[in-house]
Amino acid sequence: MTKIFDAPEEFAATALAGFAALHPHFVRLIKGGVVRSTSVPKGKVSVVVGGGSGHYPAFAGYVGPGFVDAAVAGDVFASPSTAAVARVCRKAHHGGGILLSFGNYAGDVLNFGVAAERLRAEGIDVRIVAVTDDVASAPAETVSKRRGVAGDLVVFKIAGAAAEAGLPLDEVERIARHANARTVSFGVAFDGCTLPGSAGPLFTVPNGKMALGLGIHGEPGISEEAIVSASELATLLTEKLLPERPKDTRKVGVILNGLGATKYEELFVLWSSIAGRLQQAGLEIVAPEAGEFVTSLDMQGCSLTLVFLDDELEQHWIAPCSSPVLRRGATIPTTPAIDNLADEDMLTTYPPADGGGQRGGACIIRIFSETSLVLHEAEEQLGRIDAYAGDGDHGQGMARGVTAALEAAKAASAAKAGTASVLAAAADAWADRAGGTSGAIWGLLLRSWSTALSDNGPIDDRAVVAGARQALDGVVRLGGAKIGDKTLVDVFSPFVDTLEKSFAESGSLSTAWRQAASAAKLAAEATAQLLPKLGRARPLAEKSLGHPDPGAVSFAMIATRVATLLR
Amino acid sequence: MTKIFDAPEEFAATALAGFAALHPHFVRLIKGGVVRSTSVPKGKVSVVVGGGSGHYPAFAGYVGPGFVDAAVAGDVFASPSTAAVARVCRKAHHGGGILLSFGNYAGDVLNFGVAAERLRAEGIDVRIVAVTDDVASAPAETVSKRRGVAGDLVVFKIAGAAAEAGLPLDEVERIARHANARTVSFGVAFDGCTLPGSAGPLFTVPNGKMALGLGIHGEPGISEEAIVSASELATLLTEKLLPERPKDTRKVGVILNGLGATKYEELFVLWSSIAGRLQQAGLEIVAPEAGEFVTSLDMQGCSLTLVFLDDELEQHWIAPCSSPVLRRGATIPTTPAIDNLADEDMLTTYPPADGGGQRGGACIIRIFSETSLVLHEAEEQLGRIDAYAGDGDHGQGMARGVTAALEAAKAASAAKAGTASVLAAAADAWADRAGGTSGAIWGLLLRSWSTALSDNGPIDDRAVVAGARQALDGVVRLGGAKIGDKTLVDVFSPFVDTLEKSFAESGSLSTAWRQAASAAKLAAEATAQLLPKLGRARPLAEKSLGHPDPGAVSFAMIATRVATLLR
Repeated sequence: MTKIFDAPEEFAATALAGFAALHPHFVRLIKGGVVRSTSVPKGKVSVVVGGGSGHYPAFAGYVGPGFVDAAVAGDVFASPSTAAVARVCRKAHHGGGILLSFGNYAGDVLNFGVAAERLRAEGIDVRIVAVTDDVASAPAETVSKRRGVAGDLVVFKIAGAAAEAGLPLDEVERIARHANARTVSFGVAFDGCTLPGSAGPLFTVPNGKMALGLGIHGEPGISEEAIVSASELATLLTEKLLPERPKDTRKVGVILNGLGATKYEELFVLWSSIAGRLQQAGLEIVAPEAGEFVTSLDMQGCSLTLVFLDDELEQHWIAPCSSPVLRRGATIPTTPAIDNLADEDMLTTYPPADGGGQRGGACIIRIFSETSLVLHEAEEQLGRIDAYAGDGDHGQGMARGVTAALEAAKAASAAKAGTASVLAAAADAWADRAGGTSGAIWGLLLRSWSTALSDNGPIDDRAVVAGARQALDGVVRLGGAKIGDKTLVDVFSPFVDTLEKSFAESGSLSTAWRQAASAAKLAAEATAQLLPKLGRARPLAEKSLGHPDPGAVSFAMIATRVATLLR
Repeated sequence: MTKIFDAPEEFAATALAGFAALHPHFVRLIKGGVVRSTSVPKGKVSVVVGGGSGHYPAFAGYVGPGFVDAAVAGDVFASPSTAAVARVCRKAHHGGGILLSFGNYAGDVLNFGVAAERLRAEGIDVRIVAVTDDVASAPAETVSKRRGVAGDLVVFKIAGAAAEAGLPLDEVERIARHANARTVSFGVAFDGCTLPGSAGPLFTVPNGKMALGLGIHGEPGISEEAIVSASELATLLTEKLLPERPKDTRKVGVILNGLGATKYEELFVLWSSIAGRLQQAGLEIVAPEAGEFVTSLDMQGCSLTLVFLDDELEQHWIAPCSSPVLRRGATIPTTPAIDNLADEDMLTTYPPADGGGQRGGACIIRIFSETSLVLHEAEEQLGRIDAYAGDGDHGQGMARGVTAALEAAKAASAAKAGTASVLAAAADAWADRAGGTSGAIWGLLLRSWSTALSDNGPIDDRAVVAGARQALDGVVRLGGAKIGDKTLVDVFSPFVDTLEKSFAESGSLSTAWRQAASAAKLAAEATAQLLPKLGRARPLAEKSLGHPDPGAVSFAMIATRVATLLR
């Protein structure tokens, strides 16, 4: 279990800082991540990767010439915030556009997706490739639902080599997708890992057993079986992957990955058997690696990753690279980067706003003041509801988010910003400071809503109603949740439906909002009968049956309180 | 715990083979170790290192240009045999002599030491530097008693750089000794590791505690304390080492080493605090490393190593190197090695022997036949005695050794070898096949004895008696045990004293031997009252009180049986 830490909540950030201090020839530390410390040719496509912490060398250990340009690091096993992704991308952009890649998890899809939209709005061409190599997590027919595990390394390496070769963004994206389509992994776990500060492991595997297909955060696997010998394990792993081999493939790149407490010599013993199996299958093994490449703190277990190579993929798989964790071929000549990474002046300027727009901004502040009160009052209650299925941190996250949003709204208003800009500033601050999936969702929700509003003139009731629909659309599109998945969408959707219907009938925003808030409250209670489908579907999720979703409850609370302001 | 293996007794060899298959650009596999797969300039000093397995990347992961030339690998946590060390050295020698380096453990000191003598007899200049960095294992006044832990890497790296720079053997040896004198380590353990095939860990640390100064094979530490925060741990580690700082040292090279299940991000968190402590002490940190460099299977814990640099050491510490585990600076250009590593023809030729000498050889065979009978009869009994303090494998090891010795003696005799050569061949086979410390001791004992004998003429009783003294001297000198350490020396010493005295009085070898064997038997029984001092002084050692030393017992058994042949 994790034994070395100071404050558990600072573990990920302190680890990243320590890593950066040890590897100044490769990386520079910025808020939320690291970027290359060596100069990058102007116009080169930037490959930016990331995800939760606790997986070192994923992701910071991949930064270097021939590999990736920057890595964003979230908290332990938690997606980085939208703002962190966007901030790291801005520092890592060299004019050639950005390939953003990460393992396929709901929180990452959301935060990287929203960040990409924000960056595109700033004129940066951003493409997204979510890695889906874990064959245990979904069948081949629904490959897009598969999780990303150690195949991350393969896709990042190949994309990084394509970018280093000077290929344009279209090509780098195509090659990364091609690599992902031909990369498969399967893993077994012997025992769970312990989060910093936790008294016990995140999950356990019974003594003498191994869990097949278990995810790297303890997501459920396929089955538990008795531990087998190394040579039988080699057979098991290869037999799970070889059926996915594209026809006529003759060559294969391989990663045999240790999850943390399964050690090198065990991997080498296993490798001897795996190499034999692959050769028996008529495959030539190209540049195999066995070691620790995507860990899960001190989890016991390993995974096998195969990338079925064609000539193009092979070329990029074996291309030179240099990074803290992987070095291939000859040294790539580099010079220290000299660009300035200091954070931009935080006194953001806003579009000019007239008196009506500035009064609208003040109105937004009042809404966040009330929302802050209700969320701080409910912090403990929301935490309790969340603890049935999750980390119990929903109340804290919402309180942190709204506090940051209120401060940002006040700062924007003080800088004479109008309604839309004040709301957008609040949205970004919420996403950046709340953390987790709910922070990203609320940032996205508020930012989408703001785009329907204006910085000039008094607040238009029609625009508020239209904004609600835009916000819902944004959350559904990027968040990926549908009605019935036991999320905020189960509440936000009837809210918007009722708001639109009642506003069309009554013409009164206050009447419509009150009715919509009532609908939201009912819908929130109804989520108690649902089982969650989104996010890290931990075994614990079943415990949430009979309890409402905390995100749905907090939405209904906010909607109800805001209704009192609209009278 | 170790979960991936086939036959536990093949774990180390299979792991080494798997490692070599993964790293053909760095190493070639030979029996008992790996050597560089890239060409080495003729006349370059070879740096050969090694020790037990279970410590990867120690030692095979260090092989490559700018680092070491070859690594010898024993069984898990067991010294490689003398023959393995000698064999690997012969393949790694490029005409410039050999620096042989390893951690300071009794078994390694013995096997590498005997191998060095054998190689010197073959005309190869061999120097030995045993690494003694672990400050927890002995005070500064008796530095030569300290164990070697992660400081191995420092001494090997600096010696490897000196050799790569083309310095002669005298200089490489001097620099390696200088590096060792300025390298110190201190470690803590949070939990023990499990040997392949064992049901439970080698040792445990109580929950919530950490063991200070525990050795990498579970050797006793200084104390157990409650686990502290990362910043307090940084203070503890640095405060143990900084008092050893030579005056006027301004620069320090650092290794923060994870033992297996203490993971990278924990080390990075710790590093942030350690770097601060070292800087506060006025030290400039040069090329620090944090990661897994000397592991103990899946042991939980870490160690801090400091090398106090002067200009000379700094130059070699930062010099370029390339190996599976450590790469520094620019790529060192290499070409594939083309020398033939095939084992020499095993039909060894022997010096010509006359009829008397050949009859003497046949006599040696009869002695080993009898010895083989007695050791196979006593195999279980010896195992039981050994289990009180050790692995319980003494009986097996002795049986394996004598079987190999008998075969080798027969082969040498069939090739018409004389007395001395037959005994020497038997000695080498015993050392090579028995394994462990007792195998090395018996190999050394028999080989030393053989040097007093001749290949021509009948066996000279005086020479037999003189050989006994030579054998005892050899065992004491290279084995390092004194009377009272509860080893074979406690029995062999009175045996030789009695043999000499009685032979001087009686002039009869059979009489003298009989009396000497009686003295040995009494002395063996007396070892029950002693506590062992040599070797891996496990906490278990106290359990041996009241039981005789198995090595002493087996010696007495052999001496007694051989007496029956001399009538």
